[in-house]
Amino acid sequence: MPSPLFPASTILALVILATPARAQDGEAALSEASEACLLCHESLHPGIVADWRRSRHARTSVAQALDKGELERRVSAPSVSEELLEVAVGCAECHTLLPGEHPDTVTHGDAQMHVVVTPRDCAVCHPAEAQEYQQNIMSQAHDNLVRNDLFQDLAHQINAVQLWQDGQLATQPPHATTDEDSCLACHGTEVKVVREESRSTGLGEMTFAVLSGWPNQGVGRVNPDSSRGSCSPCHARHAFSIEVARKPYTCAQCHKGPDVPAYPVFQVSKHGNIQASSDHTWDYEAVPWQPGQHFNAPTCATCHASLLASADGMVLAPRTHRMNDRLFTRLFGLPYAHAHPRDPSTHTIRNAAGLPLPVELTGEPVADALIDAEEQAMRKRAMQAVCRSCHSSSWIEGHFDRLDHTIGTTNEMTLAATQLLLQAWERGAADGPQAGDSLFDDTLERMWVEQWLFYANSTRFASAMAGTDYGVFANGRFLLASNLRAMATLLELSRVR
Amino acid sequence: MPSPLFPASTILALVILATPARAQDGEAALSEASEACLLCHESLHPGIVADWRRSRHARTSVAQALDKGELERRVSAPSVSEELLEVAVGCAECHTLLPGEHPDTVTHGDAQMHVVVTPRDCAVCHPAEAQEYQQNIMSQAHDNLVRNDLFQDLAHQINAVQLWQDGQLATQPPHATTDEDSCLACHGTEVKVVREESRSTGLGEMTFAVLSGWPNQGVGRVNPDSSRGSCSPCHARHAFSIEVARKPYTCAQCHKGPDVPAYPVFQVSKHGNIQASSDHTWDYEAVPWQPGQHFNAPTCATCHASLLASADGMVLAPRTHRMNDRLFTRLFGLPYAHAHPRDPSTHTIRNAAGLPLPVELTGEPVADALIDAEEQAMRKRAMQAVCRSCHSSSWIEGHFDRLDHTIGTTNEMTLAATQLLLQAWERGAADGPQAGDSLFDDTLERMWVEQWLFYANSTRFASAMAGTDYGVFANGRFLLASNLRAMATLLELSRVR
Amino acid sequence: MPSPLFPASTILALVILATPARAQDGEAALSEASEACLLCHESLHPGIVADWRRSRHARTSVAQALDKGELERRVSAPSVSEELLEVAVGCAECHTLLPGEHPDTVTHGDAQMHVVVTPRDCAVCHPAEAQEYQQNIMSQAHDNLVRNDLFQDLAHQINAVQLWQDGQLATQPPHATTDEDSCLACHGTEVKVVREESRSTGLGEMTFAVLSGWPNQGVGRVNPDSSRGSCSPCHARHAFSIEVARKPYTCAQCHKGPDVPAYPVFQVSKHGNIQASSDHTWDYEAVPWQPGQHFNAPTCATCHASLLASADGMVLAPRTHRMNDRLFTRLFGLPYAHAHPRDPSTHTIRNAAGLPLPVELTGEPVADALIDAEEQAMRKRAMQAVCRSCHSSSWIEGHFDRLDHTIGTTNEMTLAATQLLLQAWERGAADGPQAGDSLFDDTLERMWVEQWLFYANSTRFASAMAGTDYGVFANGRFLLASNLRAMATLLELSRVR
Repeated sequence: MPSPLFPASTILALVILATPARAQDGEAALSEASEACLLCHESLHPGIVADWRRSRHARTSVAQALDKGELERRVSAPSVSEELLEVAVGCAECHTLLPGEHPDTVTHGDAQMHVVVTPRDCAVCHPAEAQEYQQNIMSQAHDNLVRNDLFQDLAHQINAVQLWQDGQLATQPPHATTDEDSCLACHGTEVKVVREESRSTGLGEMTFAVLSGWPNQGVGRVNPDSSRGSCSPCHARHAFSIEVARKPYTCAQCHKGPDVPAYPVFQVSKHGNIQASSDHTWDYEAVPWQPGQHFNAPTCATCHASLLASADGMVLAPRTHRMNDRLFTRLFGLPYAHAHPRDPSTHTIRNAAGLPLPVELTGEPVADALIDAEEQAMRKRAMQAVCRSCHSSSWIEGHFDRLDHTIGTTNEMTLAATQLLLQAWERGAADGPQAGDSLFDDTLERMWVEQWLFYANSTRFASAMAGTDYGVFANGRFLLASNLRAMATLLELSRVR
Repeated sequence: MPSPLFPASTILALVILATPARAQDGEAALSEASEACLLCHESLHPGIVADWRRSRHARTSVAQALDKGELERRVSAPSVSEELLEVAVGCAECHTLLPGEHPDTVTHGDAQMHVVVTPRDCAVCHPAEAQEYQQNIMSQAHDNLVRNDLFQDLAHQINAVQLWQDGQLATQPPHATTDEDSCLACHGTEVKVVREESRSTGLGEMTFAVLSGWPNQGVGRVNPDSSRGSCSPCHARHAFSIEVARKPYTCAQCHKGPDVPAYPVFQVSKHGNIQASSDHTWDYEAVPWQPGQHFNAPTCATCHASLLASADGMVLAPRTHRMNDRLFTRLFGLPYAHAHPRDPSTHTIRNAAGLPLPVELTGEPVADALIDAEEQAMRKRAMQAVCRSCHSSSWIEGHFDRLDHTIGTTNEMTLAATQLLLQAWERGAADGPQAGDSLFDDTLERMWVEQWLFYANSTRFASAMAGTDYGVFANGRFLLASNLRAMATLLELSRVR
Repeated sequence: MPSPLFPASTILALVILATPARAQDGEAALSEASEACLLCHESLHPGIVADWRRSRHARTSVAQALDKGELERRVSAPSVSEELLEVAVGCAECHTLLPGEHPDTVTHGDAQMHVVVTPRDCAVCHPAEAQEYQQNIMSQAHDNLVRNDLFQDLAHQINAVQLWQDGQLATQPPHATTDEDSCLACHGTEVKVVREESRSTGLGEMTFAVLSGWPNQGVGRVNPDSSRGSCSPCHARHAFSIEVARKPYTCAQCHKGPDVPAYPVFQVSKHGNIQASSDHTWDYEAVPWQPGQHFNAPTCATCHASLLASADGMVLAPRTHRMNDRLFTRLFGLPYAHAHPRDPSTHTIRNAAGLPLPVELTGEPVADALIDAEEQAMRKRAMQAVCRSCHSSSWIEGHFDRLDHTIGTTNEMTLAATQLLLQAWERGAADGPQAGDSLFDDTLERMWVEQWLFYANSTRFASAMAGTDYGVFANGRFLLASNLRAMATLLELSRVR
């Protein structure tokens, strides 16, 4: 505890220095409605309330937020309604917003309250971000998976229970609970109101909306108000911290596995090396974010989302919540890397063979559905503008030339695996779609999936983010080649049947 | 270095502010015996001594520790003997305690000293913790592995050297040193005094106890005094830091592999995401630990061990070193998830087939040996009380419903693999126990082990701790399904022999 | 922002306290040449300039650096030329050094500038470190890979595109760009000047050297000036931070994969556990580095490179950039663990069979090329002197005995796999070198590679660094045994062809 030996002014100074960004916010008053929430919830759920109390939302009124300079501003709405303007953003400000639009609204004490706060609520103060996010392919992650028959077959062959019956495996029908505990945890569930329910609680009889698909914080969640996505996967829980959203651990929640290994690749890149070593000296809260000044290596947010500016206020990269703005190629092989889709809603794409894929099985892109070369070049330049903060032109050109080359060679390695599989189907060494069978259930077919979903993808991610170690032995070229050889070996062994 | 421009009082204040928790401890005197140890050891082993000097033990007498309020107290003994009461906890206080009970005691200078400090020593000040830990299944980890013939066979098939002789593999007998450098590193070795030895040292002729199974810091270590376990795996080395014990990196030492992937699952959970991003603002030293106030996401310790209280002193969860207190199901499949064992000593359990397993090979639990539904419900409620700090009832219910479902489906996927294996044994495609052969040496058998030990386990862990990404492609459902398919493929290929 | 309520002296003091080590450096002036660079580059590449501005180089003149005591000194040159002595180490000091020796030198404004700063430049102030590094096997990583035909074949079978033609796989010729984006990212590319090029830039027509093999920061990079290696993989980019070099995340960039898993092993060691939990209290900048005082668990640098001293100035381990100084055995199996090579240049070694390997295929070492038992013992003692900072003799002996044993057993498990492969070649189950075929293309051959490159290696690393968990199920003994069994199964299945 502070000793009385030194003046109070020093303590104040210390506190101010320790939290420079936050000290600029005032101490906005809470609305009466939010005070009422806290009366019970502060003791019912002390953790979440304390989390919120430390947030910027709890200390800032919208009026204060609107009062900032253009580059410093964190709200994109030009103004908000009178009753929201002068209070901090508390429980009631979000959970009782737009009650008529939320099917999960229930009468809760004096309030019309809904549990599932959606991008539509957030858009009251952050409309630009919400709108951009709807154009972000992530916001459609539920629909793009669930409304695509081919991907549903793959999901089914991953999630379904199999039984051993009469000397062979029998795949059971899918189960919604399994899907929610698997793919949809990241892609987003469909959250629906099943019914209202009355329960006796310590505070008397209360009404609750019983929800299906709940809890979920997937990026493409289908909300009861039919909006898509959720802000909380990145701006987590009730701190809504920009620091958390800018740290790579947040993205890692869905981007760590062998299918989209952005985080493990980052870890073995020089960027990740510096971030892990030096970020105790960074300012993760500053808006705009200044390369070199506030951080000395990029995180995921730096390259894909954040507003970057130089010390003299020149914008190096605008803020965007449409993460594909700086992505010229979709590395994530389905089953080949290809130009980014024009529309975030991809489940309506059909290739020449009628499959819901942005490429043919033999790799040719479905040109109509994808951005053209000009748009690709523009997005590449937008990304390179970020690189240029720290790298020279020759560095940047060399880097992207290698990436282009690697996209080509990994696609070729996927093509070889596909041609092998086509031959296996022809020979009857595996049962393919011509036989009316799943594309994803035989061992050879699953090896084919690993070829593009794990090894080709990972090799490309490792190249794109310069985390090469991951793309050689960990989950990349070594396995890309070994898996193809093993497919050939299995095909040969199957011949003698 | 501090400039003379500002008053010394400010420096003092800064130092105090930087270490608020510790400043509350006095500066207890060292015993003469410990001062004597330091005379030599401070220069012989400067690192470990400096580590201890920064510990709470080095700065606090037991009397000061006893003087704290009930919730703040870190010692559970009502009192200790006169000579321990007023001194800091130094070298001698632990390494010369209860000399008659330690077979590794040697005459060392003026002291009767033992190297291996055991839970029995720690229990002098921390009896409740030591007693709880003996009921913690971890404390029996050595015996439960080493005294179980079936698990010994598995360990043997993992650890033994194999030779290629006459066109086939020949498994060599196990070797104690290998076991110590493998399974027993975590499970704990048996530490025994082999002999006393006299050596000439820089400080003259000295006597040492030569130990087998040393060094080791396994959680179920069998100590020379026949006590089980060790406190140092979590309260590491000589800092005995509660901060270290509460951080997930500590648990990760044994819980990171594909068999018990608690840490990698935590990393891709929202809990882990927030901890990695925000814990520079946390107080990991506070006792009791207040959700929201001291941390805003749980670590392993939060859910499984720590004393949690609200700001107004209400206990949300009592401290326990019997980690199974809040575990209603044992996710760790042996080979199926099942209700937690009643007794921490599991090696005496026998299933109906006579195997030392808590379940039949086809999944039915050995009911007598396991906690009943009532006890399961009580433990589940105890865990949910922790969740409730930050989550609503509907969130919690939805989460645990999914876990229950996933326990069921992963057990079914293990059953299918088992039935396939039983058929392989019948057909002679692998040599099973009926043929007097190991259960774990053939390729099909090892794939069966992977089915439950890696993929079913991981899928359950991912569900339990909401780190779903790990349970899909990294080490979960995709491989759970692929491995089963590959087992069927191998069985089919084996047919033609 | 600081409030006017407290005196400016306090702010100064706070800043000084927050960066104690750096405050000892003066504020050295920049050279006119470096000021000229900054005129443009501060706005062209704000990130990299800001990074450098926070570095020790930017704030210290060589004269100030030379003025330190022997143990504190970070430069090993006894003196430097007059014009470098009194200025900070800025852009021009490195990028215009020794222009005659750098083939990539171009006229750039008033300067003769080269992009690729090499160890020869760094050696002007740090000659001892540069010289040691040339004896470090890492500095020869490019040549040892590229000039070894056998390793080139392995690299080729990993990196090359394969086509599916006429029912079989056809391996395409290697492609330099792929190699640079794969093995050579860590091993180092050969950076060569292709031509000079004139480009119009925002600042007028400028001349640039067009480089092949660029960008690259591999440890064994072959530079345009024919020097080997690069300092920036560890002393990254323009901060040249000793903190970054001492943190394990830096080494992890190349030592994280399943082939050389030093970092994942460290993570599950008690050392890694403590580092991750406690290093916010460490001083990573202190020179010399004092165990216990500045850190309480070793990082990679502690054991392999750093100058360690006790509080009273006794040197516990001298600084070395010849990392093999404390390595008695080369754990990295090629394909067997063996005594460390005498010479860092290993590509000239030939075994009795004429293969460029330090061992026979059946494990016997090529004694002439490797250090002898006496040198091994000396290096082991040097490493153990580091251990002794925190561990007793019996602890250390027990640890190294286990490592020796594990080296033996993992070599035996590699031998069994090799003998099996030799038999497969004999039987025609795989096409080996006798048939004029690659050693690394058949599935059985690739499983053999995994046996030593992944599983035997990892088991040894886990033993050496006491991160046992990694060496059991994650990437060690379980897979070492399973892979061998699977090789036997595949050989048996191949019989029926």
